[in-house]
Amino acid sequence: MAAPSSLENLIEALRCLPGVGPKSAQRMAYHLLQRDRPGAQRLMEALQQALRVLRHCQRCNTFTEAEICDRCLSPRRDPSLLCVVETTIDLNMMEQTQAYSGLYYVLMGRVSPLDGIGPRELHLDRLLARVSDGLVREVILATNFTNEGEVTAHTLGEMLKSRGFKVSRIARGVPVGGELEYVDAGTLAQAVRERKSLYN
Amino acid sequence: MAAPSSLENLIEALRCLPGVGPKSAQRMAYHLLQRDRPGAQRLMEALQQALRVLRHCQRCNTFTEAEICDRCLSPRRDPSLLCVVETTIDLNMMEQTQAYSGLYYVLMGRVSPLDGIGPRELHLDRLLARVSDGLVREVILATNFTNEGEVTAHTLGEMLKSRGFKVSRIARGVPVGGELEYVDAGTLAQAVRERKSLYN
Repeated sequence: MAAPSSLENLIEALRCLPGVGPKSAQRMAYHLLQRDRPGAQRLMEALQQALRVLRHCQRCNTFTEAEICDRCLSPRRDPSLLCVVETTIDLNMMEQTQAYSGLYYVLMGRVSPLDGIGPRELHLDRLLARVSDGLVREVILATNFTNEGEVTAHTLGEMLKSRGFKVSRIARGVPVGGELEYVDAGTLAQAVRERKSLYN
Repeated sequence: MAAPSSLENLIEALRCLPGVGPKSAQRMAYHLLQRDRPGAQRLMEALQQALRVLRHCQRCNTFTEAEICDRCLSPRRDPSLLCVVETTIDLNMMEQTQAYSGLYYVLMGRVSPLDGIGPRELHLDRLLARVSDGLVREVILATNFTNEGEVTAHTLGEMLKSRGFKVSRIARGVPVGGELEYVDAGTLAQAVRERKSLYN
C-alpha cells in the first residue's frame, strides 16, 4: 500500500533542495498537491524556463539570459577593479552595500581539497583569462572568511601575484555595531593585528 | 542591474513551498542552478508528472493515480471501520503503527472558522456519502488534538451521530515513554479525566 510512484518521485525530487530532508520533502509535496496546485504549476514552469534560458556570463560567470550580463556591459562600472566572490549571493550582498562600482568574477564555488575541488575544478584558468583583458588593475578577493574561503583567497592571491597583478583582500575585523564583549577572540585578535593607524 | 527575470521567477516560485522565505528561496535557486541542474530537471519533471497523473481517490480522497486507490480496493482491509484523518501525512502515520486494518477518509484539511473553512469547504457531504455505503459500522475520528482538529472532530461527531453512526475518537493521554514531569498540565489533566479502569 505504498504511495503512488509519481508522489514518491516528487517527494524524492524535492530532496535535491538544500536543507530539505525526507520529512520536509513529504510536507512540501502534500502541501503543493493539497493546497497549492497553481503554485506547483508555477514552480514547474519557472524551473523549466530557468533551466532553458539561464547560462553563465562569458565575462563574470554569474547567471544571465544573455551572452554577457548587463553589469559587465555597463559603461557606469569601473573596469579597472575586479572583485572575486564565491557565489552570486555574495555578489548580491556586495551590490547591496553600494560601496563598490567595479566589476565581478563569480567563482561558483571555492577551493575545497576535502571535496576534491581544486583550482582546476573551479576553472581558475577562466578567471586568469578574464583578468588579462588589459583593463583590470586590481583584483579584490572577497571570498568568505571561512577556512575554505581563506584557502581560495590564498590560492588566487599567489596565482595572481606571480602574474604581476595587484591583489587585495577585503578587510577583516569587528563588525560595524559590534561590541567587543560579544566578538569572538579570533576576530578580535585579527582586528588588533590589522589595526589601522589614524592621523597618518 | 537586477537578476535575470527567469531567475527572479524561480526564486519567487520556490516561495510557494511551506517554510521557505525569500532568503531560503534564493539559496535554493542558486543551489539548483549552480550545483544541481540534474536535480532541478528531475524536480521539474516530477512536478509535471505529479500534476498530470495524481488525483483524489473517489472513496477515501487520498492521492492516487487510479480512480480508486489500492487501499480502498484491498480485500485485506476491514470495510466496517472508517478512520477520518486530516491529511495524507496523518494517514501514513496511522499506517506506520500497523495497529489499524480498516479503511480511511482523508479530509484534506480541517474545520477552521478563522480561515473561512467550514463543513461545506471541506466537502463533508462526500464523507457522508462515503460512510453511507452500508458497510461502515464505526467511524474513528483521528483528527489532531489541536483546537482546529478538535472542532473538526466535534463537527463530524455531531453530524455522524445525528445520522445514527457509531463514532469514536482516538485516545488522548500521556505519550508512551512520557514522563509526568515533562508532560504539559492539559495533557495530564485529560489523562486523569479519561483514566481507564483496570481489572474490570
